[in-house]
Amino acid sequence: MNGTLFGLGVGPGDPELLTLKAVRIIGQSPVIAYPAPDVGDSLARAIAAPHIPDGRHEIVIRTPMVAGNFPADDVYDHYAEEIASHLKEGRDVAVLCEGDPFLFGSFMYIYTRLAAAFPVQVIPGVSSLGACAAAAGVPLVSRNQMLSIIPAPLPEADLKTRIKAADAVCIMKVGRHLEKVCRVVADLGLTGNAHYVEHASMANQKVCALTDLREATAPYFSMILIRKPEPESKQ
Amino acid sequence: MNGTLFGLGVGPGDPELLTLKAVRIIGQSPVIAYPAPDVGDSLARAIAAPHIPDGRHEIVIRTPMVAGNFPADDVYDHYAEEIASHLKEGRDVAVLCEGDPFLFGSFMYIYTRLAAAFPVQVIPGVSSLGACAAAAGVPLVSRNQMLSIIPAPLPEADLKTRIKAADAVCIMKVGRHLEKVCRVVADLGLTGNAHYVEHASMANQKVCALTDLREATAPYFSMILIRKPEPESKQ
Repeated sequence: MNGTLFGLGVGPGDPELLTLKAVRIIGQSPVIAYPAPDVGDSLARAIAAPHIPDGRHEIVIRTPMVAGNFPADDVYDHYAEEIASHLKEGRDVAVLCEGDPFLFGSFMYIYTRLAAAFPVQVIPGVSSLGACAAAAGVPLVSRNQMLSIIPAPLPEADLKTRIKAADAVCIMKVGRHLEKVCRVVADLGLTGNAHYVEHASMANQKVCALTDLREATAPYFSMILIRKPEPESKQ
Repeated sequence: MNGTLFGLGVGPGDPELLTLKAVRIIGQSPVIAYPAPDVGDSLARAIAAPHIPDGRHEIVIRTPMVAGNFPADDVYDHYAEEIASHLKEGRDVAVLCEGDPFLFGSFMYIYTRLAAAFPVQVIPGVSSLGACAAAAGVPLVSRNQMLSIIPAPLPEADLKTRIKAADAVCIMKVGRHLEKVCRVVADLGLTGNAHYVEHASMANQKVCALTDLREATAPYFSMILIRKPEPESKQ
């Protein structure tokens, strides 16, 4: 019998934001896989570390990120094959995912390669979206407002149109796009409605009003939240 | 010294999707508050029940929901005052919130009334967004796609414009708006790309392709997810 592939959300960074379900499945899975940069440690593994029993087989999914591009398909082909070899032997594999597995996570590249052939369970996790809003003290959306989650790498004109059309906005992957994003937000007259958050829920968390941000660059794990005032007529 | 107000996300329904942090704070808080319908049990309390010690003071925030409207402000004025009376006596108060406190939750009405006067900590939770995507087996967004979360009660024309503009869409609070939403999705030629999910992560969870949905009405806790194909040119 084939093993089960688990896509496990481990939350935004604070190890206490793991769910009881993620902790249980990590403890039960003979094989643990997690993404890591080309060089250096895996954030997903660090979050889950206290719950990974000694002696588990671990697969480090190293995904070289070329600035502005995405890992080549053959990287995921390779890791999907390695994971499949364990599933075929009846061993469950838990893939740890920062945040939530199906919200902008790289788990989908493993999922699309294996979901047809093996049993899969996706365990949702706390997303960085909620963590950023909590850190900033900004209730993002209420009542019948629309929230858009917009990736900062989009072209400037697309960013502008999309930010303009939403009631509340979360701009993610700000990183090296900070200058462009700030310019768009200023053009729309929304700088006073924006908060900047980096490393939400982690020890090195940083939060400020966008008007107070002095840095010209941001880390990959940074977001800008914009909350527009609710028009009285829509209530 | 004043007590701390905790806004605690308890997740979408599965009690195992509580975070370790929520469990700890529930165990430590002398006062536990939670929303409930005008008549009947509180879902948020049911999710957290195994972790609420006996003998805690409990505040049931009863919010009469008139179809299509929102509770009157004085409902929240009253409960904010009751919560404040405990905080002033130095007792921490944990307000349990379904999903995530700052994503379409009613916690913001308590938050806006008390955040200036008392220490507040917002603990993010697993949102129904991630839970619905996990249930449907639909990776919502990848790479540089935009996700919009759109409330179903919006007027038909607004719904259409907003769904059309996004790469991926989560339509929430479908409930009695099911027929309208299905019409809009069909008009946009997106029915084949849509999944219907109700009570995600709960024992009575139901998932199907929108084309297979036979019911003409839906419960309040229902969503429709739409994932558009990723244009090759954007990769």
